[in-house]
Formats: sequence, structure tokens, C-alpha cells
Amino acid sequence: MNRLQKCLANYVPLSPLTFIKRASMVYSNRTSVVYAGVRFTWRQTYERCCRLASSLRFLNVVKNDVVSVLAPNVPALYEMHFGVPMAGGVLNAINTRLDARNIANILRHSEAKIFFVDYEYVPLASETLRLLRTELKECSIVEDDMPLVIVIDDIDTPTGVRLGQWEYEQLINHGNPQYHGEELEDEWDAIALNYTSGTTSNPKGVVYSHRGSFLSTMSLINGWEMSTEAVYLWSLPMFHCNGWTFTWGVAAKGGTNVCIRKTTAENIYMSISEHKVTHMCCAPTVFNILIEAKPHERRKITSKINILTGGAPPPATLLETMEDLGFYITHAYGLTEATGPALVCEWQTKWNQLPKDHQAKLKARQGVSILSLADVNVRNKETMESVPHDGTTIGEIVLRGSSIMKGYLKDEKETAKAFEKGWFLTGDVGVIHTDGYIEIKDRSKDVIISGGENISSVEIESIMFKHPDILETAVVAMPHPRWGESPCAFVVLKKPGSTTESEILVYCLKHMPKFMVPKKVVFVKELPKNGTGKVMKMELRKVAKSLQIFETTPTYNKRSDKGSH
Amino acid sequence: MNRLQKCLANYVPLSPLTFIKRASMVYSNRTSVVYAGVRFTWRQTYERCCRLASSLRFLNVVKNDVVSVLAPNVPALYEMHFGVPMAGGVLNAINTRLDARNIANILRHSEAKIFFVDYEYVPLASETLRLLRTELKECSIVEDDMPLVIVIDDIDTPTGVRLGQWEYEQLINHGNPQYHGEELEDEWDAIALNYTSGTTSNPKGVVYSHRGSFLSTMSLINGWEMSTEAVYLWSLPMFHCNGWTFTWGVAAKGGTNVCIRKTTAENIYMSISEHKVTHMCCAPTVFNILIEAKPHERRKITSKINILTGGAPPPATLLETMEDLGFYITHAYGLTEATGPALVCEWQTKWNQLPKDHQAKLKARQGVSILSLADVNVRNKETMESVPHDGTTIGEIVLRGSSIMKGYLKDEKETAKAFEKGWFLTGDVGVIHTDGYIEIKDRSKDVIISGGENISSVEIESIMFKHPDILETAVVAMPHPRWGESPCAFVVLKKPGSTTESEILVYCLKHMPKFMVPKKVVFVKELPKNGTGKVMKMELRKVAKSLQIFETTPTYNKRSDKGSH
Repeated sequence: MNRLQKCLANYVPLSPLTFIKRASMVYSNRTSVVYAGVRFTWRQTYERCCRLASSLRFLNVVKNDVVSVLAPNVPALYEMHFGVPMAGGVLNAINTRLDARNIANILRHSEAKIFFVDYEYVPLASETLRLLRTELKECSIVEDDMPLVIVIDDIDTPTGVRLGQWEYEQLINHGNPQYHGEELEDEWDAIALNYTSGTTSNPKGVVYSHRGSFLSTMSLINGWEMSTEAVYLWSLPMFHCNGWTFTWGVAAKGGTNVCIRKTTAENIYMSISEHKVTHMCCAPTVFNILIEAKPHERRKITSKINILTGGAPPPATLLETMEDLGFYITHAYGLTEATGPALVCEWQTKWNQLPKDHQAKLKARQGVSILSLADVNVRNKETMESVPHDGTTIGEIVLRGSSIMKGYLKDEKETAKAFEKGWFLTGDVGVIHTDGYIEIKDRSKDVIISGGENISSVEIESIMFKHPDILETAVVAMPHPRWGESPCAFVVLKKPGSTTESEILVYCLKHMPKFMVPKKVVFVKELPKNGTGKVMKMELRKVAKSLQIFETTPTYNKRSDKGSH
Repeated sequence: MNRLQKCLANYVPLSPLTFIKRASMVYSNRTSVVYAGVRFTWRQTYERCCRLASSLRFLNVVKNDVVSVLAPNVPALYEMHFGVPMAGGVLNAINTRLDARNIANILRHSEAKIFFVDYEYVPLASETLRLLRTELKECSIVEDDMPLVIVIDDIDTPTGVRLGQWEYEQLINHGNPQYHGEELEDEWDAIALNYTSGTTSNPKGVVYSHRGSFLSTMSLINGWEMSTEAVYLWSLPMFHCNGWTFTWGVAAKGGTNVCIRKTTAENIYMSISEHKVTHMCCAPTVFNILIEAKPHERRKITSKINILTGGAPPPATLLETMEDLGFYITHAYGLTEATGPALVCEWQTKWNQLPKDHQAKLKARQGVSILSLADVNVRNKETMESVPHDGTTIGEIVLRGSSIMKGYLKDEKETAKAFEKGWFLTGDVGVIHTDGYIEIKDRSKDVIISGGENISSVEIESIMFKHPDILETAVVAMPHPRWGESPCAFVVLKKPGSTTESEILVYCLKHMPKFMVPKKVVFVKELPKNGTGKVMKMELRKVAKSLQIFETTPTYNKRSDKGSH
């Protein structure tokens, strides 16, 4: 058995690049990408990627060179997902919501060789480059180490805005369509670099391998059961874990990418009606955009649209409203380090018989591991033992498998911290239900430990979120003289002044165990958020800490409650 | 980028074994296997596999040891697909239609350490063992080199039939459920050994790696779009390329395996009605079994059943009849060396608008490569250039990718012949249509070269097959004084004497180009077939060669046809 050797015919390095080559062969005349008035076939998209790759080689991009890009969901960003690695480069799609300082840090840390900038982001990029130049000068680094800047003009309606010598379409035009990319020697080679949003620490550069990306893509199109001829709307930024791998996945299925510059209600409804969208991914905030759309922005939806979403579980009423509109939601859980979603809540037909609110509860769970993960566990942080499948015992979620990142770029310490005894530590806590489905309860650091009880802040938030007057809420730990920590809720009301702290506390007492009820409610105009829209709980914890001094016993907290909470 | 190393958390060898471990976690209470009155959940099946693996270790099975099995589609054979490799062994599922001589050859060539025998095959196995013992003695090999024989009694209705000391359920009972298998060190390690049917030469032992099987499984559940909660009927023998990888695939999807001992109309219809079967694979001969079922064998089919089939493309009328019955057919193409299907005819929605006979034509094509294949090509055997996508130019189909076999066991010469310049040569010829779909025209050696024209015998056969009086037909090359070769058709009539040679030739002339019309029609009672039911064209070619002497110019072949044919 051992004498049979690997050869070129039976051992080909795994890479998402095989997906587009295959698509150009077997789906050659099907529509690959649409954007405004622009439409390509898979044969054309592949040719454009070949041209891009050959131009990048011409610009001296070699293996492991980082190619950064600051762009919305336009065709160029899609093409870079193939063209950059075809040239041997590593794609670094930057979050467009970051500020110049953050972006300059990323360019410097990644030593980006090329910096693609969509015309809309030219002002931000200019400021970024100014900061970067100053920094590099301070370190006595020469101008040559600045990335080469290439602007991406709008392909449908060119604006003429420029930054630097080159424009993206020039690269395409001058490229060689006969160039089919560098031979990939090792599937462990890097394909992409994605910086974490860094809610709690400095952004870290997460490196994906060709192997990991291939496996994650295969597993996700399978886990979500994405069909052939899928029409995929780009409502999720491609810079989020390479669009949760669906940049590569749509090529694997020979589907159609519908690109939109902005995730507005009008753009989404228009695309659905015009291109018969079947699939889209998005954050739960997009649900509100769709529900609150004005009549002139809406279009009639004639067939089911599948949505894959992550983040906070949407409440039952929201799910129902969305389904009435024609959107069928699947909940997932992931993180940058796991090449996007790691768990998908696979729906079971028998659940269709259940009452809607029960369905919503099942749907709010994050579900089962994707196939590329060899193992998932939820374990007690102290004993390292698996928690029982009881739906209540909380533990840390740990993952193992070939779709986990290679590690953090130039950060051995953080890489070593993330991997422990053969597992990747997510830092998230959850439970395993009796049917094997996992439900996330919180980020490890967001768990509130009160009187020895672990309280999930997410759980309190999701209950409070159902209060009719509450628009948004975030719950954090607040020091408590008796219980060590206790929950403190920050609340944004739909209409300021429409309710009071004690009214909300009475509501909480009615809907959650007493020990979970926040000891304090703080009304705020808005919650502090980072570049990707995540609530910065660290900030809130600081506020909560200062509040503690002034804490008074809430009205409902009678003396008879002594000894319990 | 290069400094980031593989570790246990981010590099796990790919193996189908992860599917069943995952199934036992996330689909623990769902039904895994049903067989007659027996029913298991995924937790139970996993536990049984663990027990089996631990017992095999107890019986001294170590890494790379071959474990052979002669059994129909019973739960034991399914469990061996996981239990044997968990112990480090290599599963060798033997075609039950072979004779004792063939099976003895396989046991000897593979050096099988264990030989599992279903109770029904005890007489065949006894004869096999007698032959093997004689052979080994002749080579002065000691008794110790005989495989250990373990009988598999019927799990639902034990018969008491025994051969050797052990019975399968004993192994299960004595096994350790806490044993989770040997750690897989290298995904290139062997998992299965399947002998080719050998229509033209000695059977060859095709070795699959864990990596190849994992990738092939992932690609096939994707290419066929097999859904979660699939109920898969075992109408295809598991010994055919490990059931075209669906042994592992059903575990990946957490579906249900419906095992049947015999592929009869009654068993199939009963299973469909009782277990709500959604998917099945089979050879086209099973279609006739289903269509010709007697009224008492039939059951009403209430929801669509997906069939994946290979082999000769079924004619339009047959497809239509099958669809009327509730069976929706997808055509595929594969071979043992490619871990089963390599091409799947992905259906396109727009084709639903076409007339039924046009749909049948599209459905008869073998389609597009599965995702684990990095590349597929159809190339001219002399120039090695790709054929144009024109649907008419014939070339050899060559494959490359990680789901191709490791090679042939102990046969370096044949392995080297199969792999050439980075490709696996299928020996099959076909065309690429303008839409990128591949259609197989023939086995290379079955192409008839007449007057410089390549004639596909399969094409003639599929046209003749539509003749209302013809039950079966096989076309081979016959030497021809003017054209070098010419087609000779062997025909089995539904009712002997119902038609004549000249009537059939007139029919052919009406439905195919003149050069393709057989120069001779031979009526036979039945076609010579090998153990797997494949027509042995080599035999027919011998007959055709002898016929040539007596050939007379068929009546339609007038003198005016000189210079053309």
C-alpha cells in the first residue's frame, strides 16, 4: 500500500483556484458576475482573472506578496479573489469601515506590495498613505517600501477619479489571457490575509491556506445546501472572511454573483426582482433595513430567498416578519480564524410542525459543525472535560480541522495562545443541546460571573430585545459588593423617554431568572461600536465600573431576596 | 507567511472517518441504518464501528492489513466501511457475482488477513478457501497465511449458518465501545481496495487513500445535491467503488441507509413506501426491474425519488416512463480508478422547457466534473491537444485530481501505464459539447474505425435500442475488406423471430448516418456478460471476426454507394 506514490495525476494541491478554472470550462456561458449595467460569463471572468494575474506578475508580485484592497462589493474585488493568488500573491481585503490610522497599520504590518483603492475611497486612502509615509520616514524606511497604489474606477460608470499611475481596467487590458497562473506547489501556501476587527485587542492578521479555503468553501456550500444556478447577492462585504468563502463558493457552484456597491433596501430589493436572487448572507442588522424599507424601495418577492446570517439570534417575531416577506433564514456561527462560519444551523423538516416561537428558538441556535471541521467540542474551561449534551451546561467552544487558519501573521505569541493542545480556542462559550446542536451563549470574556453563576450577557440581551420600546441593548458585567459581578444593561430606546428603568426591570423579572436580571439599566443615545459595527463592550465595562459606586438597590430587589439574586 | 506551521488544531488528515464521528455527535438520535426489522441511530452505528475496530485490533489487524468481505448490502458491510479503517485496515469489498476462482485470486493477491463472509455466500466462500488452500500449498505457503474467516449471520433473522470460529455479532459484542480508532497520521494512507471487473484483462487492485475518499465523497454529495435527511436506498452494491462513496456520504449528511439484501422490485418498492426513500443509485438494468414489476410488487410513490445512474444512457421513452413512476434520473460517469463517479450531469432548470426527447438527449450526457477533480480534458490521442467544444470531435477523456486512486496494488507497470504526464487515462472516448458538458462515446478499444471515421459503438447501440422489438444489443468492430473495420450488431429480440436483419438495417439507415449502419446483424439468445453484468465485447469481437468470411453485401448497400459508406 505504501509503495503507491503521489503523482501529478492523483495528488493535486487543494485550492479554490480549481473552482474558477472548472467554472470557465463547464459553466463557460453562464453569467458569473452582474453589476449595474455590466455582465460577465464565467469564461470572461476567468479570462479577466488570468489577465489580472499576469499584470500583477508584471508589477513584480511574487509568491507570498500581500496585495491589499479597499473596495466595496464590485467586480474587481471579486476577481482579485482568484487573480491575486493565481499570481502567487496573498489577498488582503480591508474593512472599508476602518479609519486611516487602522488601515495604515494594516498596510505596514502586512508589508503590502500593492494597494488597490476603489474610487470612492480615494480620500480615505490618501490620508492612509500620508500617515504611512510619515511613519515609514520616522523609521527611516525608504519610499520604495510604500505600496504601489492602483485605483479601481467604477466599471459601469467611470468617474475619472485617479490615485497613482494605474487604473484597474488598464491592468486587465494589458494582461495576458493565456497566463493561467503560477503552479501551486503546496496547498498549505497562503491565499488570503484578513485582519480581525479587534474589539478587545490590536487587530491580528489571520492567514488562510489554499487547503483551508478549499475545504471551508466545499463545506459551506454543502452545509447551507447552496444549489447549482444559485444567484448570490453580495449583501455581505467580501472583506468579511472573503465573503464567508462564498467568493470562491459561487464559482464552485457556477452560480451568479450579483454585486452591489451599497447594502441599501433599494439595492437589495431591486437586485432580487431583476436577477431573481436565491441566496444572500448578511448581518442581522440588514433584516431591519429590509423590514423598514419604504414602499418605493420595495419590490414584490416571488420566490424564496435563502439568507445565511451570523451574530445575535433574531427574535421570533423578526423571523416571522422576514419569512412573510419571502426570506428564509439560516443561522450560523463563525469567526475570522475559522475561515468564516464553523457551525450552521441545519434545519430539520420535522421542526416545520412546531409553533413559530419554538421554531425561532431552534433557528436561533448556531447548529452543527461544517464537514471540514474534524471535531468540535464544548468544554469546561477548568476541567477540560466536554460538557454534557443538556442544553444548559456552559463551556468554551473549541475547534479542530483543516479549515482553521494557519495562524496570525508575525505574531507567534498570539498564534500559540489561540492553539492549545490540538484545539483552536474560540473564546466563545455555549451549550450543547440533547440533539447535538450547539448554541452560543457569549464571548468568554463577556460572561458575567455572579455569585458563582455564569450569566450569558447575550441571553439577557436577547430577552430585553423583545421589549417593545427597546431598539438596542448591550449587557456587561458590573462589580457588585455581594455577587462579585452583576449584569448592567445599556439600552437605546426607539423613542427616548418612552419607558423607565424600573418598568424595564419589572419586564426582565417577568421573563428571566431573578439572578439574571440587570442590577442597573443605563439609557444611552447609542452604543459605542467599532469599525465592523460590533459593540465595544470594553468601553461599556469601563462605564459600568464607574457606575457601581452610585448603585442603589433597585426597587424590586426586596430584603427577602437576601441570599439569592 | 511561511513561518506559520501546521499543528494538530489546523491540520487534520482528511478522512471519511470524521463523517461518522461527527454524525454520532450532531445526528446522534437520527436513524442511521435500517434493515428488515433492525434499526440503528448514528450514535449506535458509531458505537458498533468502534466495537468492530477494537475487535479487529484484538484479532491483530494492523495498519495496511487487508480485510476482505463477501456480502450483500447488509448493515455489517456498511459498518465495515468505518470500522475497518478505524483499526488501520484496508477494506476490500468483493463483488459477490464473481466465481470462487476469481475470489481466491483476490484473497491471494491482496494477502487478506480477515475474510468476512455473509451466511448466504458460505458455499461460495468454502469453495474459494479450498482453491486458495490448494494454491498456497503448491507455493509451499503455510496454513497461517490463510485469512481468518468470520461469518456474518443475518442480523434480523439469524440462521445459525457458520464458517470458522467467529460470527460478526460476537465481534461487536466483545468490542470496546470506548475505542475510537487509531490516529490517522497521513491522509495518503490507504482506506479501501477495490478490484476492477476486468472486462479486458486481469483484475487490478485499485487502492484509495483517505484523502481521495474524503474529497470524492464531499464532491458527490455536492454534485448530486444530496440533501440533509436523505433516505438512501442501497440498490447499488456497496462493493461497487464503496457504493460510489455514498457509504461515507450518507454519514456526512446524517441521512438514513436503507439496506436490502436483494435488489428486487418488491424490496425497492416496499422500502420506498415504508421508509420514504429520497435517493438511490443503480445500474440502468434496475429501471427495467422497476418498470416491469408485477402489480403486487408495486407501491404507490408519493414523492420524488432521485436516482443516480451510470452506464449506457437510457432512451427518452424509458426516462419518461421512469419519471411518470416518480423517479428522477441523473446520469453520471465514473470508473473504479476515480473512486466512482467523476462526471455528473448537473441538470439546468431552463432545460425543463424543452421537449421530452431533447431533455432525454441532455440527460444522456455524462456532464461536468465533480469538484475534487482539478481538471478534466478530452484530447486527441495523437496530438494530445484538447478537442474543440463542438459536441462532435472525439477524444480520450483524461482526469487529474486528488480523488484519483493511489494506484494498482503490487502492479507498478499498470500503475505507470494508467498515469501519463500528469493525467489519469480513462481509456474512454467522448466529446465536449458547446456548453462544456462531456458525453462519453465509447471505450477507447470499442471505437470502430471505418474508412478513417471513428464510429462510436455506444451511439449505434443507443439508436438500435429504441427499435420496439429489440431487448438488448451490442455493437463491435468486424474486419471489412474495404473499410478496415465495420460495425457488427449482436441483437437479442424481445420475441424471437419478430423481425429480420434487413428490417433492422432499414430502420438503422433511417435513424443514423449511412457509415454507421452495421454491416451485419446477428440475432442471439443472450449477450455474453462478466460478473458485474458488463457485456464482454472481446468475446463478440471474436465471433464477428469469424463472421466476416461469410459476409454478404446487405441488401440496402447498392453499388451507387461506392466510395462512401
